[in-house]
Order: sequence, then C-alpha cells, then structure tokens
Amino acid sequence: MTAQPYSDRVRVRRHHERGHYDRAAIHAVLDAMPMCSVGYIIDGRPYVTPTLQWREGEHVYWHGSSASRMLRSVDHAEVCLTVASFDGFVLARSGMNHSVNSRSAMLFGTARKVTDTEKKEQHLQRFVDGLFPGRWNMLRPITQQELKATTLMFMPIEEASAKIRTGQPLDDDDDYALPIWGGVLPVRMEVLPPEPDPRNLEGVEMPGHVSAFKFG
Amino acid sequence: MTAQPYSDRVRVRRHHERGHYDRAAIHAVLDAMPMCSVGYIIDGRPYVTPTLQWREGEHVYWHGSSASRMLRSVDHAEVCLTVASFDGFVLARSGMNHSVNSRSAMLFGTARKVTDTEKKEQHLQRFVDGLFPGRWNMLRPITQQELKATTLMFMPIEEASAKIRTGQPLDDDDDYALPIWGGVLPVRMEVLPPEPDPRNLEGVEMPGHVSAFKFG
Repeated sequence: MTAQPYSDRVRVRRHHERGHYDRAAIHAVLDAMPMCSVGYIIDGRPYVTPTLQWREGEHVYWHGSSASRMLRSVDHAEVCLTVASFDGFVLARSGMNHSVNSRSAMLFGTARKVTDTEKKEQHLQRFVDGLFPGRWNMLRPITQQELKATTLMFMPIEEASAKIRTGQPLDDDDDYALPIWGGVLPVRMEVLPPEPDPRNLEGVEMPGHVSAFKFG
Repeated sequence: MTAQPYSDRVRVRRHHERGHYDRAAIHAVLDAMPMCSVGYIIDGRPYVTPTLQWREGEHVYWHGSSASRMLRSVDHAEVCLTVASFDGFVLARSGMNHSVNSRSAMLFGTARKVTDTEKKEQHLQRFVDGLFPGRWNMLRPITQQELKATTLMFMPIEEASAKIRTGQPLDDDDDYALPIWGGVLPVRMEVLPPEPDPRNLEGVEMPGHVSAFKFG
C-alpha cells in the first residue's frame, strides 16, 4: 500500500490522497469493470474507443475485428487505457464540494498484438470464461477464419495508477453549520433477469454461469 | 433519422447499421450518462481522463480544477470525447458472435474554455440543477475564488456519432440448430437508497431531488 508512482505521468495530482499505486488496488479496479476506454493517436489527432478489457496477471487485453481502424492503429503504439466504475453522486453543502464516488484506473504503455493463433484462442477462452465460467467449451468451436478476423491486443500493467473516492462529502468547515442536506446517492451496476433468445432450442437450459452471474 | 456522418472520422465502420448521426440519437446517449472519457494529447502522447459531462443544446460541457493538467492541456486543442452506457452482455452460440448491448457516443472537436465568470456560474448551475433540479439555489453560494479555481470547458456537438446495439445475439445461421443457450444478460445503473451525511443538522430534510432521483 506504500507503492510509489511508476512515473510522473501516472501520479494522481488532484486529490493525491485518492491515488493508489499498488498492484492489488489497480487489479481490483480492472477486475470490477470490463468496459474501458482506449486512447490513441491517428495522424496526430486523439481518439478514444470504448471496448471491453480483461486482465491476465500483469497484462490487460482487449480485442476486436481485424478490420478495426483502432486495432490497426495501436499495434506497437502508445496507448492510454482507462477503466472507471461509477459508485455514486456526492452531494455537498456547496457546489464546489460536490463530487462523485468512483474507482478508476489509468494505464499507459505500448500496445502489442498477440499473433500466435493458438495463444490467441487461449486468451479469448480466458476472456469468455472469466465472465462466464465454463462457457467456452459449451460453444460451437472457434474457426481458424474467426481467429484470423479477430485482433487481440495487450499491454503491461506497469505505468499505472488507481484513483478511488468513497464516502461522504468533504465540506468546508463553516458549511457544516448550514441547514443543507448533504449525503451520498450510491449507484451500481445491476444485473437484471436473463432474457433467453426466443430462437433457443426447446429443452436447452439456462447455464449456471448465466443464472448465477454477478457483476465485477 | 437519415442524417449522414459529418466526417469520415465519425462514420461507424464496424457494424455500420448500428451507427446514428441524427442529433436526437446523439443527445439521448449524452443525456443518459454523465460519465465520459476525454481523450487528448500532451507532448505527442495520448491521455484519457474520466470525468462528468453535461449537455446544453448543441454543446457538451465538462469541468474541473484550474490546476488540472488535462484542463490546461485541452484549451483550444482537439479532443475526442466519448460516453458509453453499458446495457448488457449478449451471449451467442459461438465466441465470435458474443457482444455487448450498449449506447455510445463519440465527439471530435476543439475544446474551449468558458472565461466569463458570470457565464461560468450559469453553466455550473445548469450542471447541478440538470442532475438535481433546484439544488443550486439551496446551496451555500459559490464564491469568486471558487469560480476562479474551476475551469469549464466546452465543445460543439457537431462531428459526432452514436453507436447503439440492442437485442438478442446474431448467430451464424447454422449455429441456431445447436443446443446452446443464447440470450441477453441485461445490466443497468441502479440507484440505491440515499445515505445522509451523519453531519447533517438535525431537522434537515432530504430534498425531493434526492429522494426522487432517477438515473439518466
């Protein structure tokens, strides 16, 4: 918990007390939220693509179509990948002290492609099974053509930081004497009842990885 | 609904049938989710900052500390701002056809500062009241010093697109004959019961904009 920032770039400056640099904190933020934003540059202009990420050890992975402009642009290029879980609105006694509770991670690094087809398949299996344990082997097997059409990227979790805010507003001392309601409006991702595809064959049962799915 | 892409850059290429270019669709995605990611460049390297956005007419706004590296970097600079609402996991009969249901928007443009102090205050009021109607006038009034310490950025909603996926998996024709469960695991942002600050004065009641708060 006393880990130091890897670089100046990942040091949390605003509210530095909310910054975390130890692996456990960064891993926890990544593991809680598959949605991420990948930032990169094409022709000197900034791009951000929302996509899904998953972690394997000290690396983060994301994937997409081999025809994707983003994935063709980021191979061996520097990217900034962020993940943010939104945990609530923080209502203070002044506008200034309003905030949000959230857990975010920011990673800088060079993105690389996984080119080996067998490894590609193993990583994709870990992605699917990481969300839905056991699902990969229940599926129609992936084809060589599908593997070719899928680009798989990864980057090290190294130049990285997490920023975490929890709890009640931090108001100016004098403002606590004011008759203004302060507090937190917590929010979270809710999983609703599964909606089976009407085209499912009769007698096909909902697997446990669906009925017992939990977010994060 | 037949709006054309403003530029080649915002044209949705992967699953182009999911692309929307009309204002109503883009506004709806922005209005549904305050969390956004702002992509920008410092010293030729990509950065992504998670922050909150709000829309006023044909512009999107975001704010932060005047000491923020991001906000100092993006004035008169090109940015890419994205918003993504995650609506569910789509479980198909093959790994390849797995997907997520989501609504995202991508905006390119030049970010500018609001420098006029009075206007700054008006925009901040619209931000707070947009989430919590009537709250601004219940708060301890903002000070000149706080306004100075707050940087307010905006960009036009012009070079923009939305990408929306809904519904069941789209499997390969042959795969529908397989006894594999397909379907959707819907997710959404859930608002939990408000947590009043233990430091609230006795007798201060929870305002309606808190007890009746709805997301999006």
